[in-house]
Amino acid sequence: MKTHLDKKVFAEALALLERVVPSKSHNPLLTYLSLALETSPAASLGDEPQKAPRLVLAGTNEEVSLRLFIGLNAFASQGEHQEASPVHVLVPAAPLAQVVRSLPGDEVLLEVGKEGLGLASGAFQTRLALADPEGFPELFVPEARLHLKALDLLKALVHVRYAASNEEYRGIFRGIQLELGQSLRAVATDGYRLALYDLEGGLAWATSLGEPQAAPIRLVVPARAVDEMVRLLKAAGPEDEVALGFSVASSPGGSQGGTISLALAPAGKPWRAEMTVQLMEGSFPDYERVIPKEWALEVEVEAEVLKESLRRVGALASRENHRLDLLFEDGRLTLNAEGDYGKGREEVPLRTKGVAMSLSFNARYLLDALGPVEGVALLRFSGAQAPAAVSAKGDQEGGYLAVVVPLRV
Amino acid sequence: MKTHLDKKVFAEALALLERVVPSKSHNPLLTYLSLALETSPAASLGDEPQKAPRLVLAGTNEEVSLRLFIGLNAFASQGEHQEASPVHVLVPAAPLAQVVRSLPGDEVLLEVGKEGLGLASGAFQTRLALADPEGFPELFVPEARLHLKALDLLKALVHVRYAASNEEYRGIFRGIQLELGQSLRAVATDGYRLALYDLEGGLAWATSLGEPQAAPIRLVVPARAVDEMVRLLKAAGPEDEVALGFSVASSPGGSQGGTISLALAPAGKPWRAEMTVQLMEGSFPDYERVIPKEWALEVEVEAEVLKESLRRVGALASRENHRLDLLFEDGRLTLNAEGDYGKGREEVPLRTKGVAMSLSFNARYLLDALGPVEGVALLRFSGAQAPAAVSAKGDQEGGYLAVVVPLRV
Repeated sequence: MKTHLDKKVFAEALALLERVVPSKSHNPLLTYLSLALETSPAASLGDEPQKAPRLVLAGTNEEVSLRLFIGLNAFASQGEHQEASPVHVLVPAAPLAQVVRSLPGDEVLLEVGKEGLGLASGAFQTRLALADPEGFPELFVPEARLHLKALDLLKALVHVRYAASNEEYRGIFRGIQLELGQSLRAVATDGYRLALYDLEGGLAWATSLGEPQAAPIRLVVPARAVDEMVRLLKAAGPEDEVALGFSVASSPGGSQGGTISLALAPAGKPWRAEMTVQLMEGSFPDYERVIPKEWALEVEVEAEVLKESLRRVGALASRENHRLDLLFEDGRLTLNAEGDYGKGREEVPLRTKGVAMSLSFNARYLLDALGPVEGVALLRFSGAQAPAAVSAKGDQEGGYLAVVVPLRV
Repeated sequence: MKTHLDKKVFAEALALLERVVPSKSHNPLLTYLSLALETSPAASLGDEPQKAPRLVLAGTNEEVSLRLFIGLNAFASQGEHQEASPVHVLVPAAPLAQVVRSLPGDEVLLEVGKEGLGLASGAFQTRLALADPEGFPELFVPEARLHLKALDLLKALVHVRYAASNEEYRGIFRGIQLELGQSLRAVATDGYRLALYDLEGGLAWATSLGEPQAAPIRLVVPARAVDEMVRLLKAAGPEDEVALGFSVASSPGGSQGGTISLALAPAGKPWRAEMTVQLMEGSFPDYERVIPKEWALEVEVEAEVLKESLRRVGALASRENHRLDLLFEDGRLTLNAEGDYGKGREEVPLRTKGVAMSLSFNARYLLDALGPVEGVALLRFSGAQAPAAVSAKGDQEGGYLAVVVPLRV
């Protein structure tokens, strides 16, 4: 097999795969990339049957799998890639990516032979040793169940990612729940704070598979895998759609597992991607009951002004619990912190509606909650021991909502 | 004591000190900054006696000490800093720097009282707890012995820094030797490669202390401390001079210790700095005898072309010794590498004078040696087992010279 490939396209594809493929693994095969040349590819998820030959690159770390399809018609020289039998080999991922990034020319000549994978560009030639594809994990991609704007899914994920726990042994708190029903909601919580994002508008379910009739389908995606989904979705343009598939494995104990998949063919990119992620098992907490229904105090403030003030006063807070005392009075917030090194105090003018209230928060949690809010923030409180809500003004119906539990003092 | 200070000036000074002051230490006092207000300062190194009050900030990690002098005449309100007795306190360094960076206003009101260090800016007020300055290390600054352009010293240090060892337990190889005689030379080596830089032109020794008559004075500065010297020198403009002082403590065994100091008052900065560094003990190797005097092959090549080729082929080299085989023939270099994952090969056209030669090198060492060379590089070889020299063409008389030992194969 012999084919030409645009160097930039190849390097971009390898950079995406490098994120997923581990540099070390208990299974050394996982440090390899699967490289296949398909001359008459089978129809695949979200993909129209096509005749043109394509290069298929795939890698996996067992939790996240990524497959990239690169059409060769635009790049390969006529005839060179016409082979009787399809080619499928494993190539060491890290050296391949490193070499391709530093190639001198604009084009790469790829050649698979008995002696390995040959790469030539300009005056440079290399030959990488291959491994037998036997034993490399099969990448399972469930059929697409619904389509949505790629940037909508991206927005939902990045709004809530921060609230998931990054600590080991936190179980289900290390996941982000996607609720798929008439619309989409993403939720994350680490038990002390929560973030949710409701997508505006409904979801376009595939008619053949149908929209869930009763409760929405709940899928818990590991936060680290969400980071890879985010990275992939960032390649999308405003009009690109992502095809979402999933398969849920329920067990009698109520614990779920299964997979979720994204298929994306960005309009501006010469590749198409399929990502499959192993879902977490276990039930996400019943978070809705902790969100108060009534509020005793509502506050409007420029988000940026409050963030800066939280940073300043928070710098003096205790390093253990980052405690910040907030006193809301008519048209005014006073922030106080006292830590090992001294005291900080500041006043911020703002608009209040309701009773005066004194509360304590972890300064970092409030900052995180305000993170995605631009413009005017709406803060709602129902008491010194009750969870408080942070959202963007005018965004109450759907969109972003953060809930932060005050510190007990 | 009460004084006003420009926020940006204060933040810049603290950022310089933060690099030196440890965040944790066996001696907790070292995590503090010494802050003093001097109303009629004593004359100090490289400093004309002055009447205006000034703020003196100092920090140390026992190896590197830094003292910054900030004149207050331009910033302080009249009369406010007129105190009968000078003020001297210790302030926790990390919270102070963090708070000052995030202050809302352009000016800071500093106030030292019984309750601590007060900082006020805009609607923000804080009070940092103080520690007793007793027990804080005295900062010793030797008298200036010579003056040179700050950017010349910077250039000498950054040209050779890479060749010093970063590994623990490598003893004297973790230092950079400064040789001070009629001119200045900086040298570093880790035993496998060496870099030296000779300053153009002579040194201006202070007449009172005098230029060394016989051999140059040799001072070995820890590489980590050189990094801090570099950071400080980067604040200098093209006309700024640095005053260099040192005190050498010889012992009968030939092992030296002592201190070196830099004093710098950048024209564009509102502060003046004094840095003192503890020198290393022990003798630097007699490196001059390993540099060949005659060459069998001289090569000229565009440095950037060779660097890129070394990176590409080097990516395929063994991860253990990064071995690269070089074959110089008439007008041509062929690079070959073979590692765990495959082989790489490339040809580079260049100008050769002398015999054909085949040698092996650690690719990273060659890349490091070429690092500071821009334009045309001159490579000289005297045999497959003899050290090779890398320099910039037309720079042979002084300037930069790197020596790399070939791999034994």
